[in-house]
Amino acid sequence: MLKVPAKEIKNRIFNLKKAMEKENIDLAIITENVDRYYFSGTMQNGLLLIHRDYEPVLFVIRSLKTAIEESALNYIVQYKGTKDILNFIIKNKLKVKRLGLEMDVLPAVLYEKFGALFADTEIFDISPIIKTIRMIKSDFEINLIREAAKRLDNILNEMKLLIKPGIEEYDLLPDYMRLIAKYESSPCIRTRQYNMEAIQKYILSGSSVARLSYMDSPSAGGYGVSIAFPGGAGHKKIKENEPILIDLVINYEGYNVDCTRIFAIGKLEERFIKAHDIAKRCHDLFVKMAESGESVGNIYKEVFNIVEKSPYLKYFMGGVKFIGHGIGLELDEIPVITKKSDKRIMPGMVIAFEPKFIFEDGAAGYETTYLIKEKGNVEALNRINDDIMYI
Amino acid sequence: MLKVPAKEIKNRIFNLKKAMEKENIDLAIITENVDRYYFSGTMQNGLLLIHRDYEPVLFVIRSLKTAIEESALNYIVQYKGTKDILNFIIKNKLKVKRLGLEMDVLPAVLYEKFGALFADTEIFDISPIIKTIRMIKSDFEINLIREAAKRLDNILNEMKLLIKPGIEEYDLLPDYMRLIAKYESSPCIRTRQYNMEAIQKYILSGSSVARLSYMDSPSAGGYGVSIAFPGGAGHKKIKENEPILIDLVINYEGYNVDCTRIFAIGKLEERFIKAHDIAKRCHDLFVKMAESGESVGNIYKEVFNIVEKSPYLKYFMGGVKFIGHGIGLELDEIPVITKKSDKRIMPGMVIAFEPKFIFEDGAAGYETTYLIKEKGNVEALNRINDDIMYI
Repeated sequence: MLKVPAKEIKNRIFNLKKAMEKENIDLAIITENVDRYYFSGTMQNGLLLIHRDYEPVLFVIRSLKTAIEESALNYIVQYKGTKDILNFIIKNKLKVKRLGLEMDVLPAVLYEKFGALFADTEIFDISPIIKTIRMIKSDFEINLIREAAKRLDNILNEMKLLIKPGIEEYDLLPDYMRLIAKYESSPCIRTRQYNMEAIQKYILSGSSVARLSYMDSPSAGGYGVSIAFPGGAGHKKIKENEPILIDLVINYEGYNVDCTRIFAIGKLEERFIKAHDIAKRCHDLFVKMAESGESVGNIYKEVFNIVEKSPYLKYFMGGVKFIGHGIGLELDEIPVITKKSDKRIMPGMVIAFEPKFIFEDGAAGYETTYLIKEKGNVEALNRINDDIMYI
Repeated sequence: MLKVPAKEIKNRIFNLKKAMEKENIDLAIITENVDRYYFSGTMQNGLLLIHRDYEPVLFVIRSLKTAIEESALNYIVQYKGTKDILNFIIKNKLKVKRLGLEMDVLPAVLYEKFGALFADTEIFDISPIIKTIRMIKSDFEINLIREAAKRLDNILNEMKLLIKPGIEEYDLLPDYMRLIAKYESSPCIRTRQYNMEAIQKYILSGSSVARLSYMDSPSAGGYGVSIAFPGGAGHKKIKENEPILIDLVINYEGYNVDCTRIFAIGKLEERFIKAHDIAKRCHDLFVKMAESGESVGNIYKEVFNIVEKSPYLKYFMGGVKFIGHGIGLELDEIPVITKKSDKRIMPGMVIAFEPKFIFEDGAAGYETTYLIKEKGNVEALNRINDDIMYI
């Protein structure tokens, strides 16, 4: 199985220490599964301590044996309790005046526990720093993302063959799940935001898209088959001459790619086709502006400008205020493409751009994951046809 | 689609208010998806405010329309920002001296935000209260859990037909995912504990089980197909004469049932059979003690006593310190069957009991979800054969 190379881990920790120095953070205690994996190369449960003046130490809850096999770090030990953290600091005479914690994900009880342990220490939210480092993907990561994109394209091509008039949206789900497993991708996508659930089930036809998502997600929601697991494919029958939307996320070695395509059996009404063309113009503008290294806020404004001049403004994005997002080990990474963001597009970013129109009777538009390359070239990672695909 | 009945919601809120009164909590702000669903009947993102002296108010982020359709609550309004919370309190002249928050799941940033909003208010962790209420299932909930158990049995029966010598564990996964979708269950299981991931993939043969789980989970872990998504079915070939373990969770209308069974092609060595018999004795003892309303700690001790006298103590539970757990809308509910727990077994509890032995070359033991009924009768919800199933 693929291990995260030692050089990769070294670079990531170098970047983190540099950022910690800038913010005067002495110690970072990294607990979240994905962050810990990113900096250590193992998902084994535990705590990763990174002190500015010391080598990283991975305290493992379970399993130590596996963590040692998987991680390129040198100091990996069994975690027995919070006193291990204090002992490590005292034994190595480390200063901890400012402590970095992932405050966007760390539960309040653990935050309080660390607060009590470090009573005279200022606590700083280190998540924005970690997110900013993870925003820029290395060549190693980009290769994995490319592989995920290839698999995603294959799955969409296979799904296209299964869409038939008269079947229910949900009739496609068992085969969809089979394909996701066949390509060794996870049916559950890791997200960072509190309460965000990302389960692969967004196969929606016609009016289903007008049932909005229950989360802060631009996906057309759909009805699903239960109020307890709302959204996604439901019992609506797929008809001719209505848009069929598939919004899926495929991962490879943990890295995600996000893509939406529209299919149709028969013909679509002119407004769906026109709105799709407007989405295409938004994509073209995104690529052009990203290639000039524009700010995300400006991209949002210019894209919105296209939409505003179209007859379809009120159908845009089903009410959410962003039109794209960074993606990597988690689905909801930065930069988020919103009006307010002043982040500039930079090489190494991977962004899912998703202008969509949600009519009462169907969706238009599509989503592609883009890679920002050296010299600012932008590459669409999803190579599959982005026109409406007629069946 | 099934809605949570108004009477059910009313009872749940009555129980919460009663517990709040006892702990002198004036206001609960309920944010977690599952808790919010439990008390409101909708998964729509938002905040549920329950004040002792007022009707519950659900502030909805999205979608208000859907929340009104789904929830039996009377006061459902659009959430625009934290000032809505203060306005609600001021307008209705409500006292808030003690505020209850779900501190085990609420991220530190939100905890700090609420702390700033309620500057002169004592904050209290309301999660133990909510967990205790949710621990006792109503008849409405039990019916849904029974339905989940039936579906789980069907899936295991279908899986049995697919197991063949020479195929890889992972070869079974696409069909497994297909079956989970066919029975309208989620491939992603909701958990409460920080960093706990529950993805349906635990099809493990022979030595794979000795690769322990990366989380605080008693499942034999397995290798999986990637370090980034560790555990579960891997590329190991399934052989004759070795135990094959399937550990799965199936849900219906949000409610989960957890079950593990052992299959084998050909024959198994005597020690697997003997260890399986010991697990069966543990189950029998669990049922007997649960029927007498014993404490969980005593059950743990007596079960451990059986194991201690057997030749297989060192293989017990792969190192974790619990042998069962409550289950409901989340996988990891209370009571957790540990040595230290002084909770008594009570009618309405639903418990997955899972004594297992993890040998270097295979697993023995099994897991069944039990319902504690009125008058203390205990019913195994999984009706499928709990012997080793030979193929």
